[in-house]
Amino acid sequence: MHKYTVRYVLAVLLLGWAAASCGRSQVPSVRSADPLPSWADRAPKQRILDFVARVTEEGGADYVPPAERIATFDNDGTLWVEKPLYVQFAFLFHEIDRMAPNHPEWKKTQPFRAALDHDFEAIDRLGLQAGLTLLLTTHTGMTQQEFARLAGEFFAAARHPRYHRLYTELVYQPMLELLDLLRANDFHIFIVSGGTVELIRSFAEDVYGVPPENVVGTSFRYRFEAQPAPGRIWREPKIVSFNDRGEKPANIQLHIGRRPILAVGNSDGDIQMLEFAPRSRPHLALLVHHDDAEREYAYDEGTEKALRQAEKNGWQVVSIREDFRRVFPFEEE
Amino acid sequence: MHKYTVRYVLAVLLLGWAAASCGRSQVPSVRSADPLPSWADRAPKQRILDFVARVTEEGGADYVPPAERIATFDNDGTLWVEKPLYVQFAFLFHEIDRMAPNHPEWKKTQPFRAALDHDFEAIDRLGLQAGLTLLLTTHTGMTQQEFARLAGEFFAAARHPRYHRLYTELVYQPMLELLDLLRANDFHIFIVSGGTVELIRSFAEDVYGVPPENVVGTSFRYRFEAQPAPGRIWREPKIVSFNDRGEKPANIQLHIGRRPILAVGNSDGDIQMLEFAPRSRPHLALLVHHDDAEREYAYDEGTEKALRQAEKNGWQVVSIREDFRRVFPFEEE
Repeated sequence: MHKYTVRYVLAVLLLGWAAASCGRSQVPSVRSADPLPSWADRAPKQRILDFVARVTEEGGADYVPPAERIATFDNDGTLWVEKPLYVQFAFLFHEIDRMAPNHPEWKKTQPFRAALDHDFEAIDRLGLQAGLTLLLTTHTGMTQQEFARLAGEFFAAARHPRYHRLYTELVYQPMLELLDLLRANDFHIFIVSGGTVELIRSFAEDVYGVPPENVVGTSFRYRFEAQPAPGRIWREPKIVSFNDRGEKPANIQLHIGRRPILAVGNSDGDIQMLEFAPRSRPHLALLVHHDDAEREYAYDEGTEKALRQAEKNGWQVVSIREDFRRVFPFEEE
Repeated sequence: MHKYTVRYVLAVLLLGWAAASCGRSQVPSVRSADPLPSWADRAPKQRILDFVARVTEEGGADYVPPAERIATFDNDGTLWVEKPLYVQFAFLFHEIDRMAPNHPEWKKTQPFRAALDHDFEAIDRLGLQAGLTLLLTTHTGMTQQEFARLAGEFFAAARHPRYHRLYTELVYQPMLELLDLLRANDFHIFIVSGGTVELIRSFAEDVYGVPPENVVGTSFRYRFEAQPAPGRIWREPKIVSFNDRGEKPANIQLHIGRRPILAVGNSDGDIQMLEFAPRSRPHLALLVHHDDAEREYAYDEGTEKALRQAEKNGWQVVSIREDFRRVFPFEEE
């Protein structure tokens, strides 16, 4: 009887375990051992865990059905490093260098000369049109397939000037854990970035586990060319939407069709997205604050208004210095 | 020992069953009892079942990972009835009638007079600009919340002139079964329609189980207004994209970022989407043919080119008369 009981109980336990594992919300759930190990035990971590627990508690007053668990994340400065330069511009300079041999005239004409010098300040001084010209020159006038190839080559080789790592390594470990936690709790995760949509798509699935259809970004006009079969997408030199500030909620409506119950950003360009909460659901807004010059960067420029709004609206400020126990995946634990 | 064996074996069997049920592809799978009961046992049904089996067979030569199992469906004439008038126009006329008391001048000015008469032919004769004016008048110049309310009211009450049923009842039962089969096999289903995106979103989740973020359609310019908090989307009287013909693949690239391995349409406006297959994956294109005047409608107008392309490109023509054992959910089995 002893042997019988042991085996029987073991089988029943295994059955129970198998049945429990069957649910869609698997590891890491809020209820399992710390799903956010790289977050310090401070208010932001507690607020995230409470929020996720609240909206997923069936029968609870704040329960949100899975279909409405929309989470939107800014990319630059929120999911990965945006200094000393947006990666978008690192890619742009890389492309200018690659194309330069066919354009000797660039040495004598602006804004190309500044771009050949990788002089972001000079381009900035030349004005918005200069940046736009460089963007269109490097990102359009080619097929989507060609652009995806160029982006892939860039991310496979280019390195960050300070960390000497691939850009795709410079993602925030705490944010990767947050993405996993949300996925495990049936959230639908979208990246809503000022960066161009296809540049982000070229790494988002590998790096963040976010598929292309869940990336919303700045976009160019696409034109379908039927020949050669099965047709191709031509990238026209025309911006359809510059996905920043008020365009973020506008594009959330266009692409997602629902307001996010969780929104995460880091700059004044994210204010409108962080405000764009559903009217009748619980809502959490997180604002990443870059205050760690030692491990990352410290700057408030371009985030002053967002920091004020955070205080006014009850958004949760996340301090990289104090809330991120570990900043990057490559750091030792 | 007898009792021991029975209980033990039972528990182990249950454990095995629980483990097997744990897979993400549950009912109805291609391997279970007929997942497409409303499809006649003819070539289209067999080709669909073969295709789904092929792309989901792990280790098979044609295996497609779940993330790339993108399926795109046209809406009007593909998922539901589009005669005698696109539902979009039935809604438009409904709105013109609702707004008319505040616009006495409409009785004397075109294209409003024709719209008050619900005279689609007359509007068509007035040209594209006339249709556009009516579209912008009824669909824009309001918040998104207001539009969603109007669309909801329409679909809750308006009835089809021939079937005297709600429009949302006039969906094709075989297509609902196909959507279920694809979902059970981890396909990502998108509606890619010439209809306006928010009109389709207002019923797509309830009727098709397709969430708002998986609906791509004709779109208007959205403008975010921060006040009153938490902000609102204003629908501007400007079309951003008329999602038909070449705009379908262009918008598939913008919104989805991947080519569909399964595409379903019914008219010349769907040709480019049906062509837009991935280069290195198996692919199936289905073209619904309206040839059943008795149960639905019979017409080739606007589909002549698509029918020729189907023959040339090996697309599978689906005959409503011969392939749909049952057309609508409300029909008796």
